[in-house]
Amino acid sequence: MRIHQNQISEINKQKSDEHHREFSFLSNSLIKREVDVSWILQKLSDFQVAIPSWALGAGGTRFGRFSYAGEPASLEEKLDDIGILHLLTNAAGSVSLHIPWDIPEDISAIKEIAKSNKLLFDAVNSNTFQDQPDMKMSYKFGSLSNADAVIRMKAIEHNIEVVKLGNALGSKSLTVWLADGSNFPGQQNFQSALKLTQESLQHIYKAMPEDWKLFIEYKPYEPNFYSTVIQDWGTSFMLANACGERAFTLVDLGHHLPNTNIEQIVATLMMKGKLGGFHFNDSKYGDDDLTVGSIKPYALFLIFNELVFGMEKNSQNPTPAWMIDASHNVKDPLEDLIQSLEAIMIAYAQALLIDQNLLRQAQQDHDVVLCQEILQNAYRTDVRPLVREARLLNNAALYPVDAYRELAVRRSLIDERGTKTVATGL
Amino acid sequence: MRIHQNQISEINKQKSDEHHREFSFLSNSLIKREVDVSWILQKLSDFQVAIPSWALGAGGTRFGRFSYAGEPASLEEKLDDIGILHLLTNAAGSVSLHIPWDIPEDISAIKEIAKSNKLLFDAVNSNTFQDQPDMKMSYKFGSLSNADAVIRMKAIEHNIEVVKLGNALGSKSLTVWLADGSNFPGQQNFQSALKLTQESLQHIYKAMPEDWKLFIEYKPYEPNFYSTVIQDWGTSFMLANACGERAFTLVDLGHHLPNTNIEQIVATLMMKGKLGGFHFNDSKYGDDDLTVGSIKPYALFLIFNELVFGMEKNSQNPTPAWMIDASHNVKDPLEDLIQSLEAIMIAYAQALLIDQNLLRQAQQDHDVVLCQEILQNAYRTDVRPLVREARLLNNAALYPVDAYRELAVRRSLIDERGTKTVATGL
Amino acid sequence: MRIHQNQISEINKQKSDEHHREFSFLSNSLIKREVDVSWILQKLSDFQVAIPSWALGAGGTRFGRFSYAGEPASLEEKLDDIGILHLLTNAAGSVSLHIPWDIPEDISAIKEIAKSNKLLFDAVNSNTFQDQPDMKMSYKFGSLSNADAVIRMKAIEHNIEVVKLGNALGSKSLTVWLADGSNFPGQQNFQSALKLTQESLQHIYKAMPEDWKLFIEYKPYEPNFYSTVIQDWGTSFMLANACGERAFTLVDLGHHLPNTNIEQIVATLMMKGKLGGFHFNDSKYGDDDLTVGSIKPYALFLIFNELVFGMEKNSQNPTPAWMIDASHNVKDPLEDLIQSLEAIMIAYAQALLIDQNLLRQAQQDHDVVLCQEILQNAYRTDVRPLVREARLLNNAALYPVDAYRELAVRRSLIDERGTKTVATGL
Amino acid sequence: MRIHQNQISEINKQKSDEHHREFSFLSNSLIKREVDVSWILQKLSDFQVAIPSWALGAGGTRFGRFSYAGEPASLEEKLDDIGILHLLTNAAGSVSLHIPWDIPEDISAIKEIAKSNKLLFDAVNSNTFQDQPDMKMSYKFGSLSNADAVIRMKAIEHNIEVVKLGNALGSKSLTVWLADGSNFPGQQNFQSALKLTQESLQHIYKAMPEDWKLFIEYKPYEPNFYSTVIQDWGTSFMLANACGERAFTLVDLGHHLPNTNIEQIVATLMMKGKLGGFHFNDSKYGDDDLTVGSIKPYALFLIFNELVFGMEKNSQNPTPAWMIDASHNVKDPLEDLIQSLEAIMIAYAQALLIDQNLLRQAQQDHDVVLCQEILQNAYRTDVRPLVREARLLNNAALYPVDAYRELAVRRSLIDERGTKTVATGL
Repeated sequence: MRIHQNQISEINKQKSDEHHREFSFLSNSLIKREVDVSWILQKLSDFQVAIPSWALGAGGTRFGRFSYAGEPASLEEKLDDIGILHLLTNAAGSVSLHIPWDIPEDISAIKEIAKSNKLLFDAVNSNTFQDQPDMKMSYKFGSLSNADAVIRMKAIEHNIEVVKLGNALGSKSLTVWLADGSNFPGQQNFQSALKLTQESLQHIYKAMPEDWKLFIEYKPYEPNFYSTVIQDWGTSFMLANACGERAFTLVDLGHHLPNTNIEQIVATLMMKGKLGGFHFNDSKYGDDDLTVGSIKPYALFLIFNELVFGMEKNSQNPTPAWMIDASHNVKDPLEDLIQSLEAIMIAYAQALLIDQNLLRQAQQDHDVVLCQEILQNAYRTDVRPLVREARLLNNAALYPVDAYRELAVRRSLIDERGTKTVATGL
Repeated sequence: MRIHQNQISEINKQKSDEHHREFSFLSNSLIKREVDVSWILQKLSDFQVAIPSWALGAGGTRFGRFSYAGEPASLEEKLDDIGILHLLTNAAGSVSLHIPWDIPEDISAIKEIAKSNKLLFDAVNSNTFQDQPDMKMSYKFGSLSNADAVIRMKAIEHNIEVVKLGNALGSKSLTVWLADGSNFPGQQNFQSALKLTQESLQHIYKAMPEDWKLFIEYKPYEPNFYSTVIQDWGTSFMLANACGERAFTLVDLGHHLPNTNIEQIVATLMMKGKLGGFHFNDSKYGDDDLTVGSIKPYALFLIFNELVFGMEKNSQNPTPAWMIDASHNVKDPLEDLIQSLEAIMIAYAQALLIDQNLLRQAQQDHDVVLCQEILQNAYRTDVRPLVREARLLNNAALYPVDAYRELAVRRSLIDERGTKTVATGL
Repeated sequence: MRIHQNQISEINKQKSDEHHREFSFLSNSLIKREVDVSWILQKLSDFQVAIPSWALGAGGTRFGRFSYAGEPASLEEKLDDIGILHLLTNAAGSVSLHIPWDIPEDISAIKEIAKSNKLLFDAVNSNTFQDQPDMKMSYKFGSLSNADAVIRMKAIEHNIEVVKLGNALGSKSLTVWLADGSNFPGQQNFQSALKLTQESLQHIYKAMPEDWKLFIEYKPYEPNFYSTVIQDWGTSFMLANACGERAFTLVDLGHHLPNTNIEQIVATLMMKGKLGGFHFNDSKYGDDDLTVGSIKPYALFLIFNELVFGMEKNSQNPTPAWMIDASHNVKDPLEDLIQSLEAIMIAYAQALLIDQNLLRQAQQDHDVVLCQEILQNAYRTDVRPLVREARLLNNAALYPVDAYRELAVRRSLIDERGTKTVATGL
Repeated sequence: MRIHQNQISEINKQKSDEHHREFSFLSNSLIKREVDVSWILQKLSDFQVAIPSWALGAGGTRFGRFSYAGEPASLEEKLDDIGILHLLTNAAGSVSLHIPWDIPEDISAIKEIAKSNKLLFDAVNSNTFQDQPDMKMSYKFGSLSNADAVIRMKAIEHNIEVVKLGNALGSKSLTVWLADGSNFPGQQNFQSALKLTQESLQHIYKAMPEDWKLFIEYKPYEPNFYSTVIQDWGTSFMLANACGERAFTLVDLGHHLPNTNIEQIVATLMMKGKLGGFHFNDSKYGDDDLTVGSIKPYALFLIFNELVFGMEKNSQNPTPAWMIDASHNVKDPLEDLIQSLEAIMIAYAQALLIDQNLLRQAQQDHDVVLCQEILQNAYRTDVRPLVREARLLNNAALYPVDAYRELAVRRSLIDERGTKTVATGL
């Protein structure tokens, strides 16, 4: 199923008067505050978030999984889904593959499909947290940190294979999320596990092409419930330093202990030039993988405040690789991704409104009330007309959820694919 | 120091054009969505939040306290401060006294001062968590739950005294926050402590005038760090039921374990007709007592969604007593309270925008995406022009922080009171 | 595979000298402290914990599942596994079935197998958190709380079926764990969901035989990540009261927010006569379902302190139904259950050592240091010889893990069942 | 007040038979398991924990403070109190001063008093989290990270003064606990604050004598409730590296977010040679500063497991500086410290019992059940006779709490000092 830009244009027309009224009001307000509206529109137009290939189907919990009708059954179909997303939002211009869930059979055909959907291949993801059907050894007791050298080498080789595959597709970075850890005190020697992990990562790092980056994810718990080898940003940062200058820390919003000040971690990493990637989602309890911005939108805004600051001021830090990493248990996955993208763009636009000079002055004056006013003024502004205008300028949908529904995309997907398909993933 | 309405009107004039442009845009947008703007303005005008008498000075932590210049040194000065707040915001129309910090010497004089500031006396607060200089026995090991009957009776009598004092002033409710609990396993027998607390509360309840209400606060920890007798809403609810129909649970936003779904507690209590009072503040870690809406404004909105629903649908529940309970360590306390009141009004206005019928239909259709859109559309709307218009209609300040600064209120207070005064409180 | 008591006796003989030396030392020490050793031995002998039928296989997480060789493939094999456990430990004298995972085809045959293994049927568990292959409607959006009356009725009828099945087997109680809730703000109306849940539970309650009990579990989150209908003990307690006097709250150790004082909840429920059942496990982060006592053994001891107190003093509370509810990802499930049973017995024995009179006196004297000494003296005592002696008196194994290994139970199970069987469950 | 060794010897005699029976049983058991009992006794004898000078009085919370009769009013009296502790326990052989609470007037007199109490001077602590009465500027908005260079310099100079004072007394290390941070989003620029902190610490580091060490503490929150400049071990570690090889991270058990795996942090830091100091206490919710081992003794044991491992294997890491950092609200501070010291010694003794070779083998075999058995066997052993024997060998009290009470120490202190003294501190 493909949709076309003129279909979107038609739908946009119905609401363009209302949009122009709102955008005009907002831009007038911003211009009075000496905000450079066109600069913001350009920033919003340029911001692209990778969609992971496993996000197109329903997710699940250990208690069960409820499939979603019309799920893509192949990598080709996944790319088509992302193509639809990108056409509607102008914000989903790349895909992040997970190996072995998405091994392409025909590289050039896949590249062609991606190209026709205007999609790039962003970071590739390895998987050493599950055993594959044909495996003769198991990752049950760890992979890159396993006390058994044979299993470690198996996991290293898998990562190198993923890099090769990604390289053939045009990816330039590898994301390693290491589930390794232990469920019980005493199960693992912390020091040995960390040393072995470092050696394994260095091995992978050295095997990467010279223009590749390595992103090292951290997470405090799950699927291991006593310890995780890379439990926090400090450990990831230490490992990235041990690998080299093209190794970075990757922050996933859901991978923190309760009440963590994530925006401060972001600021520290950018100052050190070590924030490599960013996985967006939201959560109330743990790694809940909910829709971005659905639980703590102000926290998301505060994080974007640091990201905007860092992207302007920290030239030592490369632009991070952005990705959505959410699970979709009770929503149409595509609608859910549209809601996530909208929340990201809104937070970004709000952060771009902050007057950094005024803020810095208020900070130096210790005028805490004013500091708060500056942030809240930006946050409380209804920036949706800006986000919509940026889409309009790029021929995407003013109101993507509405357009998606009006175009009956899911109905078409079900007609094509049936109700029983199950996408690879969790 | 007193300010006058015409001073505020003068200041408002400077920005009235800008306000009218914004309000006009917003009300047009809302009218198109069939929102009853005047109904919302009335609701916002009517909403009044009590200011506790201890909130006019700087707060502190166990590590220290940094005083704020111009703090009120007497109850009279506290009432004047709240009068200023109320004049600026039209939202702070009552005061909540804390005994023994605020024992009035001359009841009728105090009532006169309150009246001249257009202030009512809301719930009175007892204090059995500190020893007073002249006490012969100590609350160190508990008050209403103390194993020693003499100390329990002392605490009961103190509460009855507080009721008498409040009654003379026109208050109609007593708030009991019980710090009782234990620091170490074994220190206290949980069952005995709970039984004794119930008996003590019943004793107090029976001694109250028949038109009084009793509000029972709960809190999981601090100042006791192993257990607290009334640790959660379930315990408070159980005690309120044991006292009688004029006993209620009081919810303080900061008195919950990490990640608690507070809005669900609010909904349950209102359904049962047992939500008596509400203490506003915000927090990231524990009972941080930060400015309302400064950390989790979306959670505040979700709570107001339940409050609005309950105030419309749950006639069995009396209108809760609203109060701000925050501490002001690094801000001018009055500016901080203005920011808290603004955050409350914004969340209330946003919640009033929710189309409850549409939401109910989406819930019944299991259209989770639409449910989220409905809430987020309300939340993302910039409702500040509504909040300002409601103030303007009541002759209060369009921009209260700005007006407060333009009127140089703090400077005047320091001139009157000096820089070394210390308000009673924490 | 069956093992025989004489095999165990043989193994016990090898270490009986050492055991007698240790037991003799301990009992001498206890007698000096005027502890009634035979009373404790009797208590330990009598204490029986149900094994859930899903605990005999490996568990998993949403990220994967690593099967364990020799898992039982049928209910018959599960009963045999529990029979082995019981023979080794004299503590696993009942089974708790989960329907539909364990629907017996031939009731009388199953009862016979249970009898031959000296097992009783404890509480039966319903399942409305997963869809079954043949279902025409889905629990995706809830079961007992579903806005759709047809689905609610389906869930009610399932529970009634479970009761019938349990009744045929000799069970006397139903455990309802309700996963219902929501993943996003707005998805569910809290008040409606709670009311519908109450009605559904009342429906089930009325359909139960008159000698049956209803246990209502609570849990703050997972598998729903924004709200759960029965989120805490207060809600469960409210629902149990609404059902009737044979409805009770069930406490699962892993179903609490971070830092919850669970022992205090236990004390409150027993005081109110409403603690119906207890699920043992351990956790560091959330509902981790780890081996009992593997993370926080002192917390387990403190809970047993309340349970021992309540079983002695609260005649209004029936003896709770005990069950282990853990998941076994990296251990042999049977060895894991042995370790859980050992931890339970140790905590129970330690709690039985507490001198309640001395403790009460110290509490009344506010001698907090002594209160702590009393608890810690009990806890620091090495009570394992008591636990072993109680087993020895009942012809079970002195050292069950060692005996299990010496008897090569797993090897025999694999020989019988193969390496590829997968037990029903999570 | 001074007590004498012969008084302790007299008291020990009364219970020496019982002790010898218990020690004999235990040492026989351990010898059978090939444990080197005399090696453990030596380790226990050598282990010395510093007592901070502020721990001799009652602590408090922001809600109040209940003084303890007989508190020391001067540094001299504090040293005498620690002398008593050390005589009773043989474990409190040093003192950690806090400046400006404990500025000695006569250095050589103080050194003499310390010597007569057999006390050394361990790390000195600076204080930039409170303003002193005579200060002309304020640390309200930070000290080492303050945006104002004059205040930063003031804070740096204070630290250098503390080093000078400590050096005169014989201390060899400085502990910096930095309360700097912010209460509200936007108040502080994270990157600037961190950079300024690094510069300030480097300044202090360079000013220290060449045989001194710098310990950098971290803490996620309190007294600042939005952000803390040194929020976690990763930040502290980064700063320590930026200072130099004699700068280290200091771990305080209470300074972590909920559920943090602290033992893993300990292992990582020791592997990197960067664990400089350790503050013992216990907590259930936050930085509760409760008696060591009173809430989570198993977690303490697991931490000691890593410490024992690191002290044996990580020659790159100096022996950490040990200190108790607890607050005493409801107990006699000296009795509380005795209970803390006992808990530390017990956890240390248990950890010394672990057979590291067996454990390593079980880890390599992925025998998780056995790993757990090895740890739990050590932990479940009643090691108190070992701890007592180590005390007896050093002429300290077999049962220090009992001896303290029998000697009526507190009564004597009250007689000497009265009931109204208030020790400096929190």
